[in-house]
Amino acid sequence: MTRRHTTHFTVEFGDCDPAQIVFYPNFLKWIDSAARHFFVAAGVSSWSEMEAATGIIGTPLVEVSMRFIRPATYGEDIAVESWIDEWRGKSFVMKHIVRRGDDVLVEGQETRVFARRHPDDPRRIQAVAPPDDIRRRFE
Amino acid sequence: MTRRHTTHFTVEFGDCDPAQIVFYPNFLKWIDSAARHFFVAAGVSSWSEMEAATGIIGTPLVEVSMRFIRPATYGEDIAVESWIDEWRGKSFVMKHIVRRGDDVLVEGQETRVFARRHPDDPRRIQAVAPPDDIRRRFE
Amino acid sequence: MTRRHTTHFTVEFGDCDPAQIVFYPNFLKWIDSAARHFFVAAGVSSWSEMEAATGIIGTPLVEVSMRFIRPATYGEDIAVESWIDEWRGKSFVMKHIVRRGDDVLVEGQETRVFARRHPDDPRRIQAVAPPDDIRRRFE
Amino acid sequence: MTRRHTTHFTVEFGDCDPAQIVFYPNFLKWIDSAARHFFVAAGVSSWSEMEAATGIIGTPLVEVSMRFIRPATYGEDIAVESWIDEWRGKSFVMKHIVRRGDDVLVEGQETRVFARRHPDDPRRIQAVAPPDDIRRRFE
Repeated sequence: MTRRHTTHFTVEFGDCDPAQIVFYPNFLKWIDSAARHFFVAAGVSSWSEMEAATGIIGTPLVEVSMRFIRPATYGEDIAVESWIDEWRGKSFVMKHIVRRGDDVLVEGQETRVFARRHPDDPRRIQAVAPPDDIRRRFE
Repeated sequence: MTRRHTTHFTVEFGDCDPAQIVFYPNFLKWIDSAARHFFVAAGVSSWSEMEAATGIIGTPLVEVSMRFIRPATYGEDIAVESWIDEWRGKSFVMKHIVRRGDDVLVEGQETRVFARRHPDDPRRIQAVAPPDDIRRRFE
Repeated sequence: MTRRHTTHFTVEFGDCDPAQIVFYPNFLKWIDSAARHFFVAAGVSSWSEMEAATGIIGTPLVEVSMRFIRPATYGEDIAVESWIDEWRGKSFVMKHIVRRGDDVLVEGQETRVFARRHPDDPRRIQAVAPPDDIRRRFE
Repeated sequence: MTRRHTTHFTVEFGDCDPAQIVFYPNFLKWIDSAARHFFVAAGVSSWSEMEAATGIIGTPLVEVSMRFIRPATYGEDIAVESWIDEWRGKSFVMKHIVRRGDDVLVEGQETRVFARRHPDDPRRIQAVAPPDDIRRRFE
């Protein structure tokens, strides 16, 4: 069964724009946070501990898409439900549904890779296959 | 011929995350800004003037997708080239290419609608057909 | 007795900068949010309801100062304790202490005024004396 | 004579809040960026180069204060004039004036220190005296 995790956020005044609604990029900020909380909740160690143990420095984003269904405004509580929808070689697909109560506000999809520093140039990164013990946690 | 507009930004220290690269949602922030600058450059009046004249309050985002090709970091100058790629009834598709010099960093696509306040409930908005004079500017 | 309110936040990855610590302006963002939650917790109605009832549109910031004592990083939970420290004619002083557990991270002080739209020019605002019923709640 | 530097920014839609004006923490973001551009304009190498050469990793903020005189909104161009106002042992005081044309919007003051990683614990930092060659550039 697919492991899912829900992360809760409160929409603040400063998250909203002159149209009185959430400024769109903040939904991507919450989705990004939800992705990290998903891994933390699954017991994956912090990226700095993981780098020490495996060389993996994180899961950089390769593609993202979001569909905006309803707006939100400040004072509202929202919840982001996240799961890994598909494993594809070196990349994986995460899905996120942002809700306010039962109403779906945003549907998001991220494609991420596990990455380490390039052995020849530490300023570059390269995708690596997901470690087996991580992948097993989510299947 | 398709009208295109390029908007320039400088990546600041605070735009970057602990991985030393631009925090992804900031690319969406720049793309959103570029979309507004595109309309301003084309002579479309500010949303508040447009609301007074036509009832249209802006172009809310319906869908967005971004593909991340190369990262960027602080001190770098980036440019976002923007154009309207397609008109579809009440919605239209904008494309954005984010470059640093000749390198493509991000490709983005937005679907937006023209919207006005709902006549029966000013807290809701509804999509309307793009005004002819606006559409003509871009065809 | 002085009414105090504590607002809780989680430091996210994207709140941190390339030095791996919270980007300073985010502490001001949390303090600003804490100020609004303080009023909400005290039963002050939302600014839009208050504008309808009293013409008051909010409490714009006149001055702010922050002292940074310890840094914070992502994954940490922080708490902002807020209170009104002093009433001065049309302005009032809020104090905020940001803590992680027992450690004080930041001390902040804001001077705010109650404001309404200028009767002759709705684009300008003007300070007004705090409404008695609001002031009474906090004394 | 005191060296001064002016950094230019454009206020974007997403920098503004539901009150239609710049969300206050964004002024601190611009002041922080202006402080970095000030050092870059003076020929101080990037923090990562400086760390390699001197161990200094940057100039963390110890205190900041801002006075808000006039608001700004999107579409406006603002300029931040920055200078070092005082050297005090290990710390120094920067002043910043944010203007839109001739109008002063915000006056800011920052106290910063030069810092290196703590020799016994790389996760902590410690203040060090400003390097002579840097201090000489600004006196």
